[in-house]
Amino acid sequence: MLAHFTLADAGRRLEDLETPVPVIDIDVVERNLRRWQQRCDEAGLANRPHIKTHKLVPLAKAQIELGAKGITVQKLGEAEVMADAGITDMLLTFNVVGGHKLGRLADLARRTAIKLVADNEAVLEGLSQAAAQAGRGIEVLVECDTGAARNGVQSPAAAIALAQAIDRMPGLAFGGLMTLPKNGARQQMAEFLGEAQAGLAASGLDVPTVSTGGSPDMWKDDGLAQVSEYRAGTYIYMDRMQVAAGSATPDDCALTVLSTVVSVPTGDRAMIDAGSKSLTSDLVGLEGYGEVRALSGARVYNMSEEHGFLDISRLNHKPRVGDLVRITPNHVCPVTNLFDKVVLVRGSEVLGAVRVDARGTVQ
Amino acid sequence: MLAHFTLADAGRRLEDLETPVPVIDIDVVERNLRRWQQRCDEAGLANRPHIKTHKLVPLAKAQIELGAKGITVQKLGEAEVMADAGITDMLLTFNVVGGHKLGRLADLARRTAIKLVADNEAVLEGLSQAAAQAGRGIEVLVECDTGAARNGVQSPAAAIALAQAIDRMPGLAFGGLMTLPKNGARQQMAEFLGEAQAGLAASGLDVPTVSTGGSPDMWKDDGLAQVSEYRAGTYIYMDRMQVAAGSATPDDCALTVLSTVVSVPTGDRAMIDAGSKSLTSDLVGLEGYGEVRALSGARVYNMSEEHGFLDISRLNHKPRVGDLVRITPNHVCPVTNLFDKVVLVRGSEVLGAVRVDARGTVQ
Repeated sequence: MLAHFTLADAGRRLEDLETPVPVIDIDVVERNLRRWQQRCDEAGLANRPHIKTHKLVPLAKAQIELGAKGITVQKLGEAEVMADAGITDMLLTFNVVGGHKLGRLADLARRTAIKLVADNEAVLEGLSQAAAQAGRGIEVLVECDTGAARNGVQSPAAAIALAQAIDRMPGLAFGGLMTLPKNGARQQMAEFLGEAQAGLAASGLDVPTVSTGGSPDMWKDDGLAQVSEYRAGTYIYMDRMQVAAGSATPDDCALTVLSTVVSVPTGDRAMIDAGSKSLTSDLVGLEGYGEVRALSGARVYNMSEEHGFLDISRLNHKPRVGDLVRITPNHVCPVTNLFDKVVLVRGSEVLGAVRVDARGTVQ
Repeated sequence: MLAHFTLADAGRRLEDLETPVPVIDIDVVERNLRRWQQRCDEAGLANRPHIKTHKLVPLAKAQIELGAKGITVQKLGEAEVMADAGITDMLLTFNVVGGHKLGRLADLARRTAIKLVADNEAVLEGLSQAAAQAGRGIEVLVECDTGAARNGVQSPAAAIALAQAIDRMPGLAFGGLMTLPKNGARQQMAEFLGEAQAGLAASGLDVPTVSTGGSPDMWKDDGLAQVSEYRAGTYIYMDRMQVAAGSATPDDCALTVLSTVVSVPTGDRAMIDAGSKSLTSDLVGLEGYGEVRALSGARVYNMSEEHGFLDISRLNHKPRVGDLVRITPNHVCPVTNLFDKVVLVRGSEVLGAVRVDARGTVQ
């Protein structure tokens, strides 16, 4: 897996790194990727990992090499970075709206097999223009709101109607159904999708792909009978949220934010140099903003932008100024987006730094 | 003020911008800066604005041109960018710990008049080494915890002891007292600082600077009698949090995140392309993650990374796919840190894009 990477600053020790910085255990990454690919293979699911979590070309290539059918991206900027690296099978799971974006989409469609989603007719006109500009057809999946109350058509009937509208639109081909289900509500999803599939079959439209996603429910089998493709992002690194959801163990968490203790003002509090500009303020229903496993799960109970407040009240051996701590974040996906580079490690052995290729790319 | 900027993509309209992107009304910025400088002048306070909020060299220069004594930075990376632009009077309000950082500090001390803070003796050894390496003295202020329960010595006696330790340390000079008080607790701050100042006077140590900060209480006079310097960051842009605190009006909010409506799945919900990777998930005690003033204050009630969920239930005229909305964020400081560029505007006239000079710089 390391063959894909160009590593900078090799040969350093953890103590030599400038904190805060995300450190990623490449062995844990590889184990997470292999395990999930095996599960997809056994379940007959095409694996289409979401690269929003890592935003790294070498890891996208590793995912494909291990068996992923292609990748999922959430914005044009991510797609452009991956296309520049030679990845062509991409699904962009966000309505593309607006003149400049449609020009960029046309450029991508010319050089890749990028597929899109849509959940309303207003979006289709632009996609059709982009296809015309690219001089080739674009596949468009219908995004269905099967319970998550985010984007998506609101009923199977609306899904069928939109699929037919796609089919009629010059340059566009109906590519199937796509949804991000509500956590724990796969049966609801299956009923929605089943009804839409039956209606589409009756109307003579093929459904090439039925794509679902979400890491919290990734190991559950219910409701997947008619699904052909799975999109998961977090599974590559895992995080506190996935551990809380039961889809990962603490050992599966590959990314921690390496931070330095800069002050121990009281016996209850250590201050670290990772705050909301390093960990994000995502709470996702958890207590605290992250935890240090090596310190009995001591929590980051408060944050400023560059300060983390570590609860050390229950520790017998209190950390000291200069100590390094590794924080498991609540939600790992937005963390690497905050950093221009991350560091690969094996345990506490530093392998080297890599640039976050698609960090902060424009939508 | 615009003279400081090199603008890219001039001549565009709001409709031509790729969303999401922060747009900053430069007239509102100028009014905010002038008003605060006038207040500092009238109150006899040295103005040392915190550049963590904007991270833009041109705005730091404008602040100094309008009367600021120097700037505040929160990390070495910010200091390095500002030093490269020729700004020399800087206060870095964070303990600097760790070998590589001390080398960078020595380099900064060689070419600027950077001042530091410390709240514990363990930090002093490194600062002294950096001063020796730089070949010049470094001023160090004692950070006091006057109620905010973040960094800082815990008592006036501890402040005096640390000041004396600084005074004894080769290459270091005691620069005064620094605190970020708890919001609404300036009297508590004044008592702490007054006791420390009295003790320092009795021990024969001058207190060149007494530095406090914080935007929510910036207009309040209580507790400021012995303060000589004020550090505020948010006042340049203002945000929902400052409006809620009574330190700004909605008209004072200079930065909004321009976003596009990409879906209107129901009459209650419009989906926009600004989520937690654009607005951050900072709640700071407010309801929602931001609001659209032009839509009767419609709130962003939920977010994914690239999705914002806009509550349109109370609107008579519902937004449509393709509409632009301008979102006032809860907490503006971490927002520009998410973007490589921001766009300057006057009302709805686009002036041009500028690079966020110190975005994501290493700590």
